[in-house]
Amino acid sequence: MQHTVSFTHNDKQTPVEVSTGVLLSDAAHLAGIDIGQPCGGQGRCGRCAVQVREGDVRRRSTLRLSPDDVEQGYALACQTVVEGDVAIYVPPQEKIERRLTTDRVVAEVTVPADYEYLQDQTVRRIHLELTPPSMDDQTDDWSRLQTAFRLQHKMERVACSVNLLREMGEVLREGDWQVTAIVETSRLTDEKTCKLINLQPNHVDEYSPLWGCAIDIGTTTVSVWLVDLMSGQVRAQVAEYNGQIARGEDVISRIMYASKNGGGEELRQRVLDTINELLETACKRVKARPEEVVKATIAGNSTMIHLFLGIPASNIRLSPFITAVNHPPLMTAREVGLKIHPEASVDCLPGVASYVGADITAGVLSSGLDNAENVTLFLDVGTNGETVLGNRDWLVTCACSAGPAFEGAGVVNGMRATTGAIEEVWINSETFEPTYRVIGGGKPKGICGSGLISLLSEAFITGIIDKAGNVNLMASSSRVREGAHGGEYVVAWGAESESGEDIVISRVDVDNLLRAKAAIYAGFTVLADTVGVPLETTDKVLIGGSFGKYINVEKAVQIGLLPDMDWSRFEFLGNTAVKGAYYALLDWRKRERITEIAKRMTYIELSADNSFYEAFTSALFLPHTDMSKFPSVAEALEGKVNK
Amino acid sequence: MQHTVSFTHNDKQTPVEVSTGVLLSDAAHLAGIDIGQPCGGQGRCGRCAVQVREGDVRRRSTLRLSPDDVEQGYALACQTVVEGDVAIYVPPQEKIERRLTTDRVVAEVTVPADYEYLQDQTVRRIHLELTPPSMDDQTDDWSRLQTAFRLQHKMERVACSVNLLREMGEVLREGDWQVTAIVETSRLTDEKTCKLINLQPNHVDEYSPLWGCAIDIGTTTVSVWLVDLMSGQVRAQVAEYNGQIARGEDVISRIMYASKNGGGEELRQRVLDTINELLETACKRVKARPEEVVKATIAGNSTMIHLFLGIPASNIRLSPFITAVNHPPLMTAREVGLKIHPEASVDCLPGVASYVGADITAGVLSSGLDNAENVTLFLDVGTNGETVLGNRDWLVTCACSAGPAFEGAGVVNGMRATTGAIEEVWINSETFEPTYRVIGGGKPKGICGSGLISLLSEAFITGIIDKAGNVNLMASSSRVREGAHGGEYVVAWGAESESGEDIVISRVDVDNLLRAKAAIYAGFTVLADTVGVPLETTDKVLIGGSFGKYINVEKAVQIGLLPDMDWSRFEFLGNTAVKGAYYALLDWRKRERITEIAKRMTYIELSADNSFYEAFTSALFLPHTDMSKFPSVAEALEGKVNK
Repeated sequence: MQHTVSFTHNDKQTPVEVSTGVLLSDAAHLAGIDIGQPCGGQGRCGRCAVQVREGDVRRRSTLRLSPDDVEQGYALACQTVVEGDVAIYVPPQEKIERRLTTDRVVAEVTVPADYEYLQDQTVRRIHLELTPPSMDDQTDDWSRLQTAFRLQHKMERVACSVNLLREMGEVLREGDWQVTAIVETSRLTDEKTCKLINLQPNHVDEYSPLWGCAIDIGTTTVSVWLVDLMSGQVRAQVAEYNGQIARGEDVISRIMYASKNGGGEELRQRVLDTINELLETACKRVKARPEEVVKATIAGNSTMIHLFLGIPASNIRLSPFITAVNHPPLMTAREVGLKIHPEASVDCLPGVASYVGADITAGVLSSGLDNAENVTLFLDVGTNGETVLGNRDWLVTCACSAGPAFEGAGVVNGMRATTGAIEEVWINSETFEPTYRVIGGGKPKGICGSGLISLLSEAFITGIIDKAGNVNLMASSSRVREGAHGGEYVVAWGAESESGEDIVISRVDVDNLLRAKAAIYAGFTVLADTVGVPLETTDKVLIGGSFGKYINVEKAVQIGLLPDMDWSRFEFLGNTAVKGAYYALLDWRKRERITEIAKRMTYIELSADNSFYEAFTSALFLPHTDMSKFPSVAEALEGKVNK
Repeated sequence: MQHTVSFTHNDKQTPVEVSTGVLLSDAAHLAGIDIGQPCGGQGRCGRCAVQVREGDVRRRSTLRLSPDDVEQGYALACQTVVEGDVAIYVPPQEKIERRLTTDRVVAEVTVPADYEYLQDQTVRRIHLELTPPSMDDQTDDWSRLQTAFRLQHKMERVACSVNLLREMGEVLREGDWQVTAIVETSRLTDEKTCKLINLQPNHVDEYSPLWGCAIDIGTTTVSVWLVDLMSGQVRAQVAEYNGQIARGEDVISRIMYASKNGGGEELRQRVLDTINELLETACKRVKARPEEVVKATIAGNSTMIHLFLGIPASNIRLSPFITAVNHPPLMTAREVGLKIHPEASVDCLPGVASYVGADITAGVLSSGLDNAENVTLFLDVGTNGETVLGNRDWLVTCACSAGPAFEGAGVVNGMRATTGAIEEVWINSETFEPTYRVIGGGKPKGICGSGLISLLSEAFITGIIDKAGNVNLMASSSRVREGAHGGEYVVAWGAESESGEDIVISRVDVDNLLRAKAAIYAGFTVLADTVGVPLETTDKVLIGGSFGKYINVEKAVQIGLLPDMDWSRFEFLGNTAVKGAYYALLDWRKRERITEIAKRMTYIELSADNSFYEAFTSALFLPHTDMSKFPSVAEALEGKVNK
């Protein structure tokens, strides 16, 4: 039976016709109204609440709604089905701001000292001079070109797509039989076959840039580096929230959303849009066109790679947790929908398992862990919280779901580390008044990951927040108050903020941060226990994750995110995944090394491990239930108390 | 400036807005009116004449219009541009009937005696049993499948597209880890790489058919054979006019049409539509779905292959007559738009030159010319009239533009050799009354190629038509009369025909047939002269072309299409091109043999040769200006005169 659902949203009325049993969220989609579903439509987050003003619906779940809310007609759009004509009010939706601002996380990247284009690079730009055809030499264009490849560059077997054949005749004649070709040698197999990527008339200046890109598809943040393959230099770095966030904040929510009808294709399109926009921005900065980019190397966790390629990811979520593919074959930009040169190779780096993907194998490469003499710990502080322990002889790895809190998502005033983000906070232990530093120096807009760690640590040490994460409402400061989400602390008053509204950290935010840090801490401690290597004996702790470089070690230890050990043993490496992709983009040997790393890594499944759950629970406190593990923090607290 | 062009066509008025200078044919296209342009829009054929009833136009050319026509406002749509608001009357358009009837040219094809699927075929259907994954074996799906290929079938390197990766997980689980794969080994290169084409759950009966198709894209007729690759048997044969005919009747007109804006893409789509419809019909006959076809081998002249692949063909027409590609790389059905299995390989056979294409190399293979001990002549009596002379040691070839007359196109009452076609004619030399045989036995609809040869010969021998092709209006028969296109002879009165209208052959038709036969005759005589091999010394004359099997040799000699020699030396082989494609589809060695043939053939360019033009002019008569070359015809005429 058909019913009319009449939506009111942003002062606009939109009616749509649907059958009995259709979800309100799907009806809204039909009406062109974008209702956020950070949990992927599982009814967990409560962000898709709408008000039923007239008519009949059936609520499958009202979790996350108070009895008052239900009384007032509220319903979760993702959990409520239409049973008659209804009128629905959709409140204004929280926007995930997508602004491409100057990014704090522009890393200084030095080209590997030994980079030599001719030895390391698979892509070549070469000049060819052909003998023009005549009545005495009626050889076809493609054979003529192949002969030039063979005689002038010893390239015996060059492959060519039908699309290039379509352009070839005109290019050869426009260039008067002088052309510049871009070819790629396939060093991943032992065939030594070349592939023709592009053909241009005339001679192209051999020193002009030859563009490639290294991409990291993070669950929360997508990073793109634009690289001149001739010099090896990174010429532009851009990053943005993954457009899939609106459909789930962690990989599990995304997988669930993808398994719904059309969900997979929507998520594929969303991340493609994010990447293609980033590519366009990066290219604009260097005055290039995206079609000039002739090679892409992509890192990302297994779920992100599956969704990007449009491969169903549902088995990643279901026991026994199987990916469809860990070593994706080389593809072309045309096949996957990347808006660079359509014939460009898209190389998705190999992963190890469902929860240890190409971001980690690339990270191990760029961190140098695989060549370490002594036992070293590698942490990727991203949404998934993967850990690798090992050295040049062995590597073990595990993953835990940390969530996106440290990337500024899932925290009400959280944001990415761009202009306007509070990146460090100090709190006066007597007045509880904060001092903070804002990226770019202007008015604050929100708090980024390093700011959240700093804030959490300061609030804990000064007693605003207790060991369990409760906000101390007895503290004598107007900044401490009861908010919509429980107790909260005001970091910046509306008068000083960009939006005019208070910037706060609430009890719910603290819980999210505690769960994130506990998962990461539990992950690496269980891994170390499993292989019998005491954490204290690790030579170094290498920390990846795009915000990693800016973490204040003292504060990260104080909240129990990092183990309490000599600070000199920590190294913050920034986004190790995109850096690994960059190395692989430049050098085919490094690319092969990543395949070796993926094969060498032993994956330890934590979900099958009770000890992980115990370790996680113990770590849900500040800094930990067992203070003996954090002597320096105990001392600091002691100091405060004694002062 | 914008003008309104108001079309009246089939009692319907359609106005469109165009700018000054737009061609009436383009304006009609905009209005959705399909005006035939058999000459490709060159103003040569006069079929696109329309009447300008109001307003201003500029006629670039009025060739093919009489002064009377112009007086009455007629204009050639392809040569006339809009200069103000105009009202245009479009007369009813001649339709090229596209009927898929039982085809006379269903050839009896015997599977090569030595065909052995396992040795000859590149496509394999194999069964795989995989170990299901578990918490102790979390290998990804694709690696698991690759291991099964390696262990169970010794296939070391299997390639897989992203599209198959998207389906893989579900297929493996649906079949409970038992699957049937279709793979193709690439024997064209020396890599021994396999490509995965299809994956199905469970075990497929190993004796069920495995479908492939052999296709010949003729300028006039497209033929498709559906083949069971397991047994090698041809299970369905279908043929149809090439949908491009409406845009040009010969390759030159097509190339010119293709070089106009959007023309190439339109022609590509038209031939794709023809092929895809034929595939659907063929599959229906054997109760298969087109997506079950996993391999396609394609023959066709160079222009047809270029247009099918969407590759610009303009340099084929312009001196020095260069193709973009003679040896197209293997493609997938997805890339080229063929509606069979999207991952199926599409193998376009190699050609030799602009006017000697893959239809001829395939024809040489299937005719056995390349293995002949003695010097043999091979003729392809199609639209292009290619000739090959040689034996197992050497091969020379040339081409001449014969036109489509013998395929029933370009002749007013011409048609393909399907039900209703007059296929043989006898004329009483005293009463001039004809007797004819109709394919299928019903009422005649038109005359096919063999019928036209028969009719021309009989009309000549009985004196209805003279040596120069003039209709003898003095003949005492009501069947001889002055028609719209000059003198004509009525083969069937309206009372006996299917349409109720007279079926005639006119002076214009005779001219077309004379030009066609003269071009073919001149081609092979000049070729023989060039290499210094007298035609009389050739051991055999092999005749290809889809209607070839049904030619009456005596009559073909009488009109001077074939040389006057002992009839036992002629062999009619039918469509040798599709047969060659069929052999190549079955057997990779035969496929490689075609590449060798293409490389071995020496192409002789007739356009650079004055002797061709002389030979053509001499052959424009019945049977030839030099009667000493046709002693048997002289004798027959003598007999008539003496009788």
